[in-house]
Amino acid sequence: MKHFLNTADWSRPELQAMIDEARRLKTSPYGDVLKGKTVALLFLNNSLRTRTSFDVGAQQLGGHAVVLSPSGGMWPLEFEDGVVMDGDAEEHVKEAAKVLSRYCDMIGIRAFPKFVDWEEDRKDKILNAFAQYADVPVINMETITHPCQEMAHVMALQERLGPLDGKKFVLTWTYHPKPLNTAVANSALMIAAKFGMDVTLLCPQSEYLLDMRYMSQAEQDAKANGRHVHVTHDIDEAYKGADVVYAKSWGALPFFGKWEEEKPIRDQYRHFIVDEEKMAKTNNALVSHCLPMRRNVKMTDGVFDSTNCIAYDEAENRLHVQKAIMKALVSS
Amino acid sequence: MKHFLNTADWSRPELQAMIDEARRLKTSPYGDVLKGKTVALLFLNNSLRTRTSFDVGAQQLGGHAVVLSPSGGMWPLEFEDGVVMDGDAEEHVKEAAKVLSRYCDMIGIRAFPKFVDWEEDRKDKILNAFAQYADVPVINMETITHPCQEMAHVMALQERLGPLDGKKFVLTWTYHPKPLNTAVANSALMIAAKFGMDVTLLCPQSEYLLDMRYMSQAEQDAKANGRHVHVTHDIDEAYKGADVVYAKSWGALPFFGKWEEEKPIRDQYRHFIVDEEKMAKTNNALVSHCLPMRRNVKMTDGVFDSTNCIAYDEAENRLHVQKAIMKALVSS
Amino acid sequence: MKHFLNTADWSRPELQAMIDEARRLKTSPYGDVLKGKTVALLFLNNSLRTRTSFDVGAQQLGGHAVVLSPSGGMWPLEFEDGVVMDGDAEEHVKEAAKVLSRYCDMIGIRAFPKFVDWEEDRKDKILNAFAQYADVPVINMETITHPCQEMAHVMALQERLGPLDGKKFVLTWTYHPKPLNTAVANSALMIAAKFGMDVTLLCPQSEYLLDMRYMSQAEQDAKANGRHVHVTHDIDEAYKGADVVYAKSWGALPFFGKWEEEKPIRDQYRHFIVDEEKMAKTNNALVSHCLPMRRNVKMTDGVFDSTNCIAYDEAENRLHVQKAIMKALVSS
Repeated sequence: MKHFLNTADWSRPELQAMIDEARRLKTSPYGDVLKGKTVALLFLNNSLRTRTSFDVGAQQLGGHAVVLSPSGGMWPLEFEDGVVMDGDAEEHVKEAAKVLSRYCDMIGIRAFPKFVDWEEDRKDKILNAFAQYADVPVINMETITHPCQEMAHVMALQERLGPLDGKKFVLTWTYHPKPLNTAVANSALMIAAKFGMDVTLLCPQSEYLLDMRYMSQAEQDAKANGRHVHVTHDIDEAYKGADVVYAKSWGALPFFGKWEEEKPIRDQYRHFIVDEEKMAKTNNALVSHCLPMRRNVKMTDGVFDSTNCIAYDEAENRLHVQKAIMKALVSS
Repeated sequence: MKHFLNTADWSRPELQAMIDEARRLKTSPYGDVLKGKTVALLFLNNSLRTRTSFDVGAQQLGGHAVVLSPSGGMWPLEFEDGVVMDGDAEEHVKEAAKVLSRYCDMIGIRAFPKFVDWEEDRKDKILNAFAQYADVPVINMETITHPCQEMAHVMALQERLGPLDGKKFVLTWTYHPKPLNTAVANSALMIAAKFGMDVTLLCPQSEYLLDMRYMSQAEQDAKANGRHVHVTHDIDEAYKGADVVYAKSWGALPFFGKWEEEKPIRDQYRHFIVDEEKMAKTNNALVSHCLPMRRNVKMTDGVFDSTNCIAYDEAENRLHVQKAIMKALVSS
Repeated sequence: MKHFLNTADWSRPELQAMIDEARRLKTSPYGDVLKGKTVALLFLNNSLRTRTSFDVGAQQLGGHAVVLSPSGGMWPLEFEDGVVMDGDAEEHVKEAAKVLSRYCDMIGIRAFPKFVDWEEDRKDKILNAFAQYADVPVINMETITHPCQEMAHVMALQERLGPLDGKKFVLTWTYHPKPLNTAVANSALMIAAKFGMDVTLLCPQSEYLLDMRYMSQAEQDAKANGRHVHVTHDIDEAYKGADVVYAKSWGALPFFGKWEEEKPIRDQYRHFIVDEEKMAKTNNALVSHCLPMRRNVKMTDGVFDSTNCIAYDEAENRLHVQKAIMKALVSS
């Protein structure tokens, strides 16, 4: 039995096989590989795309999704071993995972960071606890990484570009009024490196570098592919000759939990918006964002609504890759 | 592709064909016209009947419903074009509509007015934005009109009365401790006129007239059928000879957003309750209400529990007409 | 038509037949007895196991569950007959029950006590109102008793012990930082007596006795089986020779609604925890808890994680017995 927690746990050929299967499912969506099977979807945070696409995907493969959320479907959970549970938690994650495993054939988890202490959040405790205790495969529906989004993104790129090796991939930080989760940024960095692209991380200053765990993973994968991960704060240099521009905002890790201190820094960088002028410097690059996206803050209407933007395809591909992932896990 | 936003967009024969189909589905409920298809149901407000009947209806036609709500299934939405999204909204309705269209085959929307500014609420922005941007049919599950309720009501009337032309239909305002949405009142007025009835709108004083858009639509439809829309504040005159009494409470539009000023006016009219004494003046009229209904405030137990009351049939018919509507849209 | 409100309404052979059917369904889970049918699940309180197991169970029998909750699926309800509904309630339970009966084939209700006035809570008004007004079978998904849990527990005991007659069953109160519902305790007492066990109720002092309605029912059933219900405050006496230990915490009824007065009493009895030392006095007893359970507060990790603990089996059996119950009701 194998979980789908992070793409780093899977080889590039394994991931490519899932993407190939997703392309088959895109043209021929129905099947019965999940017939009689149920996927529990635990949402500890909001969701539109993930909730809908997993539910629809399970259904199209003959299965059924049960959506659970803390308002209604969950008791407050304890994650530590051996603890005397006389605080707020009514149930140990061990029981939640073991019991759901008796009812369901797969468990999806969405659990965003708490945004107070990155040392704590980076342990990804909820996801890892479910993976440890569940007797069925667990899928990461976004925690501190977002591997389903990665897969949908690569699928959308391959649909337009074919093989990705040697393409220049730019992950650009953009302004957003609030500090956001680094999950999609971490994921974009890793998957771009894994699939053989030359990766440029563009961010305003060094405080916006991502967690070393993900930087190192990307560097290691890039090296194995004979490519590089390059960090820059120079907008022109980053965009020049880019084949892919991926936009995302995130909070600076050194200010984690002290967000009021980060605000004046972040507020200087509204000009990191993806706009027509910057895109003109690229190699007619494809551009995308994971959605939801604040228009004219992260990307101009002009860029987003252009034919170079593959954000809707990427969003649609969530459905297809997640079906392929569920298929792979259920037969693993 | 056609949406089901308002009955005014459809001809009487088209609506009658859906009601006829609903009557067939009432005796033979199962089918596979939605096989492999998903309906997204977006509830921005509470629902018991609508949520259950759409979900059950989709299922009975071989399909599947995904229920989304702001607590869990939705990000705060932006509706304006070209805006710099640096406020509360995290996602533009365009993306929500486009992405849901990639996953689902139909989208139902419930979005009540905000009750602050009728000039704003009467634009019905959420429904219209989804209709504009979605690539799949959109169904109004109650916004500032409630066309599914209209259809269920006409179906229930036809089941008991046969053809409705020339019947006297009375829409009576009733007291309710809070100002309510005019949606069902607007809808009742329009559908009664469209189906050839002589319509009487009974309300306590002119401030309770409905929006001119709906008054005019009803007058125009009544005229086309050789009938009339008559407004009165005289209870006896309204009930006299009525064939149908439809009860509903609503807030007075001139006091929209200034509800504390309306309260002393509204409080004078508790005697607009539908009771046995008033019903005795009718032509043994059928009586109904869209539910939920405050007993002994809007209608006495005696009237509601009488055999003249068709409220449960009307509620049940929601299931049947909505199935007919989904069937019509999916094949349009 | 029969409801499943309390096991007291069903004979031991009837209940045994459902458990036997549940054991068949455990090995052969799929069927079509609910094909085309819908179960409405009304949750007025949180749920993980109940929500998931009913949803999965309906699906495995070919049916469909619609989950409704006050945040989204329900209007505030009125329960009294003949009342002028000018307070908070927007809908009478009569309409909710009648209308759901038009859409669905069964209705499950979870409605915990309000914890203010036991004389009021013990009327079990919500469940009884639905049972009174619904035109389809109603299932108790936990109110002031929890009959589905009882059935799952007996099934798990029989799987390990075979016939239960004459076994020593100990229901032990345990500490919990908050006063909890007596539902599972009431249920455990009754089902143990009904299935022929000698029942010992262990609680710290007489204020923790359960409602006389359930004490009497258990005594009457025990007597009919030639057995006894024995109350003790002596831990050693209770555990000695026990074949089954069932742990549960609950609030003392004489302090109902005055919980701050109960707290200093309850706080003296942390030592009622089920631990290895106490278990050593038993006849190698099976031990269980209905979940969620606070580890090392109600039961030590050592006991809970031992092979004598059947809590996960009991939780799993919820799925199987509920399917058997739905099957029995739909054909009744």
